[in-house]
Amino acid sequence: MSKAMWGGRFSKSTDEMINEFQASINFDKRMYHEDIAGSIAHATMLAKCGIITDEDRDKIVAGLKDILQKIEKGNFEFSVDLEDIHMNIEKRLTDAIGEAGGRLHTARSRNDQVALDTHMYVRREIVAVQKEIENLQRALVETAEKYSDVIMPGYTHLQRAQPILFSHHLLAYFGMLSRDFARFEGVYKRADIMPLGAGALAGTTFPIDREFVQKQLNFDSIYTNSLDAVSDRDYIMEFLAAASILMVHLSRLSEETILWCSREFHFVELDDAHCTGSSMMPQKKNPDVSELVRGKTGRVIGHLMAMLTTVKGLPLAYNKDLQEDKEGIFDAIDTVKFSLAVYAQLIRGMKVRKDVMKKAVTEDFSNATDLADYLVKKGMPFRKAHAVSGQAVHDCIEKGIYLEDMSLEDFQKLSPLFGADIKEAISPETCVKNRNSLGGTSYKQVELQLHAAKDLLAAEEKVSDKAADKQIQVK
Amino acid sequence: MSKAMWGGRFSKSTDEMINEFQASINFDKRMYHEDIAGSIAHATMLAKCGIITDEDRDKIVAGLKDILQKIEKGNFEFSVDLEDIHMNIEKRLTDAIGEAGGRLHTARSRNDQVALDTHMYVRREIVAVQKEIENLQRALVETAEKYSDVIMPGYTHLQRAQPILFSHHLLAYFGMLSRDFARFEGVYKRADIMPLGAGALAGTTFPIDREFVQKQLNFDSIYTNSLDAVSDRDYIMEFLAAASILMVHLSRLSEETILWCSREFHFVELDDAHCTGSSMMPQKKNPDVSELVRGKTGRVIGHLMAMLTTVKGLPLAYNKDLQEDKEGIFDAIDTVKFSLAVYAQLIRGMKVRKDVMKKAVTEDFSNATDLADYLVKKGMPFRKAHAVSGQAVHDCIEKGIYLEDMSLEDFQKLSPLFGADIKEAISPETCVKNRNSLGGTSYKQVELQLHAAKDLLAAEEKVSDKAADKQIQVK
Amino acid sequence: MSKAMWGGRFSKSTDEMINEFQASINFDKRMYHEDIAGSIAHATMLAKCGIITDEDRDKIVAGLKDILQKIEKGNFEFSVDLEDIHMNIEKRLTDAIGEAGGRLHTARSRNDQVALDTHMYVRREIVAVQKEIENLQRALVETAEKYSDVIMPGYTHLQRAQPILFSHHLLAYFGMLSRDFARFEGVYKRADIMPLGAGALAGTTFPIDREFVQKQLNFDSIYTNSLDAVSDRDYIMEFLAAASILMVHLSRLSEETILWCSREFHFVELDDAHCTGSSMMPQKKNPDVSELVRGKTGRVIGHLMAMLTTVKGLPLAYNKDLQEDKEGIFDAIDTVKFSLAVYAQLIRGMKVRKDVMKKAVTEDFSNATDLADYLVKKGMPFRKAHAVSGQAVHDCIEKGIYLEDMSLEDFQKLSPLFGADIKEAISPETCVKNRNSLGGTSYKQVELQLHAAKDLLAAEEKVSDKAADKQIQVK
Amino acid sequence: MSKAMWGGRFSKSTDEMINEFQASINFDKRMYHEDIAGSIAHATMLAKCGIITDEDRDKIVAGLKDILQKIEKGNFEFSVDLEDIHMNIEKRLTDAIGEAGGRLHTARSRNDQVALDTHMYVRREIVAVQKEIENLQRALVETAEKYSDVIMPGYTHLQRAQPILFSHHLLAYFGMLSRDFARFEGVYKRADIMPLGAGALAGTTFPIDREFVQKQLNFDSIYTNSLDAVSDRDYIMEFLAAASILMVHLSRLSEETILWCSREFHFVELDDAHCTGSSMMPQKKNPDVSELVRGKTGRVIGHLMAMLTTVKGLPLAYNKDLQEDKEGIFDAIDTVKFSLAVYAQLIRGMKVRKDVMKKAVTEDFSNATDLADYLVKKGMPFRKAHAVSGQAVHDCIEKGIYLEDMSLEDFQKLSPLFGADIKEAISPETCVKNRNSLGGTSYKQVELQLHAAKDLLAAEEKVSDKAADKQIQVK
Repeated sequence: MSKAMWGGRFSKSTDEMINEFQASINFDKRMYHEDIAGSIAHATMLAKCGIITDEDRDKIVAGLKDILQKIEKGNFEFSVDLEDIHMNIEKRLTDAIGEAGGRLHTARSRNDQVALDTHMYVRREIVAVQKEIENLQRALVETAEKYSDVIMPGYTHLQRAQPILFSHHLLAYFGMLSRDFARFEGVYKRADIMPLGAGALAGTTFPIDREFVQKQLNFDSIYTNSLDAVSDRDYIMEFLAAASILMVHLSRLSEETILWCSREFHFVELDDAHCTGSSMMPQKKNPDVSELVRGKTGRVIGHLMAMLTTVKGLPLAYNKDLQEDKEGIFDAIDTVKFSLAVYAQLIRGMKVRKDVMKKAVTEDFSNATDLADYLVKKGMPFRKAHAVSGQAVHDCIEKGIYLEDMSLEDFQKLSPLFGADIKEAISPETCVKNRNSLGGTSYKQVELQLHAAKDLLAAEEKVSDKAADKQIQVK
Repeated sequence: MSKAMWGGRFSKSTDEMINEFQASINFDKRMYHEDIAGSIAHATMLAKCGIITDEDRDKIVAGLKDILQKIEKGNFEFSVDLEDIHMNIEKRLTDAIGEAGGRLHTARSRNDQVALDTHMYVRREIVAVQKEIENLQRALVETAEKYSDVIMPGYTHLQRAQPILFSHHLLAYFGMLSRDFARFEGVYKRADIMPLGAGALAGTTFPIDREFVQKQLNFDSIYTNSLDAVSDRDYIMEFLAAASILMVHLSRLSEETILWCSREFHFVELDDAHCTGSSMMPQKKNPDVSELVRGKTGRVIGHLMAMLTTVKGLPLAYNKDLQEDKEGIFDAIDTVKFSLAVYAQLIRGMKVRKDVMKKAVTEDFSNATDLADYLVKKGMPFRKAHAVSGQAVHDCIEKGIYLEDMSLEDFQKLSPLFGADIKEAISPETCVKNRNSLGGTSYKQVELQLHAAKDLLAAEEKVSDKAADKQIQVK
Repeated sequence: MSKAMWGGRFSKSTDEMINEFQASINFDKRMYHEDIAGSIAHATMLAKCGIITDEDRDKIVAGLKDILQKIEKGNFEFSVDLEDIHMNIEKRLTDAIGEAGGRLHTARSRNDQVALDTHMYVRREIVAVQKEIENLQRALVETAEKYSDVIMPGYTHLQRAQPILFSHHLLAYFGMLSRDFARFEGVYKRADIMPLGAGALAGTTFPIDREFVQKQLNFDSIYTNSLDAVSDRDYIMEFLAAASILMVHLSRLSEETILWCSREFHFVELDDAHCTGSSMMPQKKNPDVSELVRGKTGRVIGHLMAMLTTVKGLPLAYNKDLQEDKEGIFDAIDTVKFSLAVYAQLIRGMKVRKDVMKKAVTEDFSNATDLADYLVKKGMPFRKAHAVSGQAVHDCIEKGIYLEDMSLEDFQKLSPLFGADIKEAISPETCVKNRNSLGGTSYKQVELQLHAAKDLLAAEEKVSDKAADKQIQVK
Repeated sequence: MSKAMWGGRFSKSTDEMINEFQASINFDKRMYHEDIAGSIAHATMLAKCGIITDEDRDKIVAGLKDILQKIEKGNFEFSVDLEDIHMNIEKRLTDAIGEAGGRLHTARSRNDQVALDTHMYVRREIVAVQKEIENLQRALVETAEKYSDVIMPGYTHLQRAQPILFSHHLLAYFGMLSRDFARFEGVYKRADIMPLGAGALAGTTFPIDREFVQKQLNFDSIYTNSLDAVSDRDYIMEFLAAASILMVHLSRLSEETILWCSREFHFVELDDAHCTGSSMMPQKKNPDVSELVRGKTGRVIGHLMAMLTTVKGLPLAYNKDLQEDKEGIFDAIDTVKFSLAVYAQLIRGMKVRKDVMKKAVTEDFSNATDLADYLVKKGMPFRKAHAVSGQAVHDCIEKGIYLEDMSLEDFQKLSPLFGADIKEAISPETCVKNRNSLGGTSYKQVELQLHAAKDLLAAEEKVSDKAADKQIQVK
């Protein structure tokens, strides 16, 4: 900000370099809508409480709406010299409407003003993130339904463990995203608190009406402690934590997509739109989008670490360090929204190689648990059955065959409990069908999961729609 | 685990060093109670579903209760060779009761078993943390009431800004802790999901009843996807995120305590119990506890970083990397509980130097805003009043006096709007009293805050008591 | 990149959104000079080895120099469609010079090309950072000399501990910065390795001469393993680690500057240029620059965490995740250079209040160690002397006096070893003068430190000048 | 520490809980050898300088050696009440030898004492880490030699890119580890600075001889600023940064090992000793060790994050927060040493499936670059050749064949430049052999690499041996 703004206290001009370093206009200008909506609500309240005249209020409101239009039409030049979005707008307003502009900042400080803008902005973007979460969840449900009969190897330790339904695998991510959605609901709640009226730190001596502002701006509650109101950055740290966990989920999905696209797994084919080629190797079709999302996980975690470190050890109330709150969360918002959006596309666009997956489950030992379970059901204690099954695997490996290839005699050499039904009991289809415990991979359980998923999606949509309805749109 | 446990698959013994490296018994033994409670519920369900006999169940339950008693009496030797808490207990059980012990693991895997234990453990410790949060909040309320008439300088940028009530300052931390409490409620919700029955990853072929286990163990819900159940570590990452934010709050309080104890601020005197001396400098009384808590903030943030990094990029379902989930959260639990407990003591034990704080607010310019507000109320636009007030401060600094020392003539030279009431208008008491906006620092507003704080505390207690009641206690 | 670039492999166009997401041109364009210098060296080598004709080389070199001029004059429009700086330049080159342009990429891949550019860029910026380190060190030396006679309280635990020279305190930061300089020397060494010629991952089938490229571009050494060459991001992680430690140092200096500016310490006055005012409180003069630097520490640490997380768990060789290496280091470079530059200004511009510091050391107990040392020198064991001195402090506090105010009789009641010389022995000047051990705070030792500091600075300058001389400037 | 140690300043006993919280004995006891060696050197110097008598020195030295023996024989009980290793030893010494023990702490503070111990400890462990690095490097070299003729697919984006030698792939890790070694050399240099004599913060009034202590303890240099000496934790942050980067390298190797062990890749078989089985699935052979090392990468990065956050914003000189420096680095040391040791074993023990790798390179398009290069060598510009090669791949995929399966006519339809030598030119052996550029994957280049690797290993050994020789061993 030009030193002139602070009145008579200073006798020397700030160095250019420093001006640029501490100016936030290059990134906080994206909150222009919030800043204007907040100022209109503030001015309206000031007039209602008799702190400014109705005439001044009208001038201010009209002036702000004019500026809003200019910005949205691209006819507003932001000035680094005016440091931040607040002064850019207020200065322009005062230039346009004169002394009334100078009254807008009555009973307000930049500390509570920037807090208000950021709360409103984050509140809005949480809903946008939730909408993208729903979109990806929908893509997962659709794709799970589309490939509802595909069996694939389920893995632990990246070793084939037991055959599962591909749709079951996809729905594991649905579960993660549901928790992500719920976490963002929590962040929303703690972002949806109105700070305006806290002044610089201690409230104001003017007879303001904070509830009136709250209602105009559709906030759920009001900060009841002014020091807390201006120094709280919890909702930003919490957003970044929720975003980090979400990105960790997408990094897992990315890892799997990349594996599945490899020549070795060959389970899926991504749409060309989600891949790129190589400048040197003509045959390459690289899953770049998945790699980028996996890579960007670090970026969002980095923003979280940055914010926690920045706030650590700061005394109350506002400190300039807190200005560092914005770039990280803005970038995290963009990254998370994009990553979700692109993954919804990618999941919808990928082709699943049912045959390759099928072949995989018949050429491994992922039915060994079923062999052990078979024996347990015939009365053998689990630990012993586990050992017998292990022996069977061992023998097969030595002979270069799979369990399905063993003869009944071979089985019976290991235990007399084996009967002719053993072959059927260890086929991949049976293995899948029999895992019919709640949440298991059987066709029936996965169908139940799909139903539940659709119900949950509908419930989530209600939540995010309601939050979206609360958003302020200056007209 | 001794290779013998895995049956016939292996022909070579694991190296000692590796055994030790991957054994988790040294830290996961603290979940012994959860492991036993979970196994009792599992065995009871197996019998109910006809998977094991009632006789076997009775042997298992009695055997497990016997082991519990041994552990609690310190008569149980944990073995690194048995790798983890699960095998330590199961092996001992089988040694004691024979074949029935071998049936306990039917329809269960270590993957869902360890998930169950950890969920139960974290769920319990969240309540313990919440109880400590309440305790510190209570200490803040009591201390705010005890010193309800103390005025101190409010700071922004560590510069004196406006006079505030000391109790107002303390209550800002009450607000932060309320959000911490609420955040842990969210974590609780996402820890309170039952994973048992997910098997290794895909469910089980046995006709188990997961709802029956859920009811026995008082879980709010059940994982509906088995892959998700065994690979979900969200509640651990989320706990660490909530703990990190909480510690950041305490680091801010610590920074302030340390400042206040300094010879320069001299605002409070800590109880000797919360300080230490120096081995070299006899006069020192160091606020070690505050420094340690501030320092330990890094530790908890480090655990969060560790966990996010560890889970990043892991394919489904279980991977051994996930074993790294425990040490961090265990240490974070200890650190957070201690930090809260010691701060409740420290806040209750500290003596506030009312006189020093009083002197501080009369020897600075923290009433300059009130001077500006005075002019605004007489009709001057805010930005202009701000400039006049700045000029007054400037003049005073040059003369080496404060605003209270200015004569009426001096004031009137700056603006004819000044009247005889200006002196009264800028006294610290008036400055405080007049910041009577909702959430402001006036006596009245702070009293309202205290009432609201007590109500909130009562509500929190209900929440944590209810959660505590859900805890399982094996008898 | 437009799919057209990859030739015939693809049948579908990449989605716009994805294009933008994975395009790096918006940030990697700052490496334009390195990209052009690298391509010139590559083309020159190709011609020397007979892989392209001299005619083609001349066209390429002239074309690239033309593009360089255009970029530096601002006449070059970067296109997101062309994805990155490499394709932006190569495409334009081919448009301008035709088929010869298509030969430039012979025996090269984007993987080794981007590695080359980044190595060269980082190498250059390390020197720039080192120059700024030297500048701040010089400011510290100058300021230490300017205030060589100022005594201040030395602190531990933010409690006054022992009187020290202000210049001694400043030079502690000189020491930290020397280590920073040395750390960046290490990073330089590991950035100064030539990757070009590694191809996509495995080298090239063309008879190239990597040593010739090395010499042209003044690299110290060559990657001897092509997989390592394209996947190594150590120098970026290491740069970020060195930058993080450096920022931690500046955060400590910032914390102190902020404390010193507070009304309570009042030790220094910052130049108005390094402070800002308040929009609400006219009297405020906030040490914003110090706060911002302290805040930006989190940012740089965040970039380090981001990079470590991103590279964690990536298989060899190149993965798209690695594209995330640039934005973080670019921002860290800007932040570190600015922070150092502004601190050099701030240190040079600050006024030290000698009188306030002096008063501080006479009104505390920071000479209690000297009291104990006095007794030790008279023969009392240290631990006992420590206890006697503690008793003396205790008595003084009860009486509201300082050690200097005690009478000889009072001293002798505590121990008969006290003599008339005790007063002199515990005056601040004596305390400082007597700490004459190597590296201690005595005038003599600090003078020695200053000499050593200047010598070290001279040595550092030689190092950074030599590195600067190695930089490539396309003419 | 029992309050009694601090003499007369305190009138109230510290709470038990706090004692335990701030006691460091449970982790700092591992520095007992360094503490004793440092005290012996200190006492020897005190006597040499006439500060204590030779008689006292002899008593102290003998007493300390006695304590050392007791500790090493396990006959020393550490007491939490005595807080840390320093007081545990000093108290026991004084109990044993009386008043002379009370003179040991003359001219010393715990601040410089703990700094000395930690510097010595870290210095020692850096060498231990370097030895383990060398060991793993040796294992890589041996294994590379053992499998020098094995061809495998080289990957970028986890897509097969070009055939490479398996030994070439392994040696990429040799390169990373060489840089790790060099980074630890840098850390060593900055750990190898002697802090003793800095006192609490300002030096000491006793006529000590720091150079004499330096020589006794084989330090390379001395801190020339006492404030810096007691507050510097750079070497710890830098160690953790170097350790984090090293762990990131091992996480990459782990990721690859895990992939290679998968049923899908099937490139290697790990020794049973480095795998574990499953409690539920008898067929599993899980690469647990690799997974654990990959998981523990997060742990070490977390420690780095913790330390950076802890030191951020601390004023000079010592603050209790700095006590948090030890647990993280101790755990990082253990983790890094173990991870390196176990990986040396794992690499040596793994069996490479030459046939599987061979099959892989003949059934993919990783020779497409060579096809393009073939055309370039016949005169086609690179970008055009790239397109032709892409077309060939495209055609093959449609026909379900590989490039080797194309007839000469098919090739010539794409370009008349193709001749009969094309088959030979794109065989995996030729692809490998022809990448003969410096650092490329050809047999010849890899042999050169192996030679260079052995030379580097020898040079590293000299460095670490020399550092090992500097270590102090109390006898």
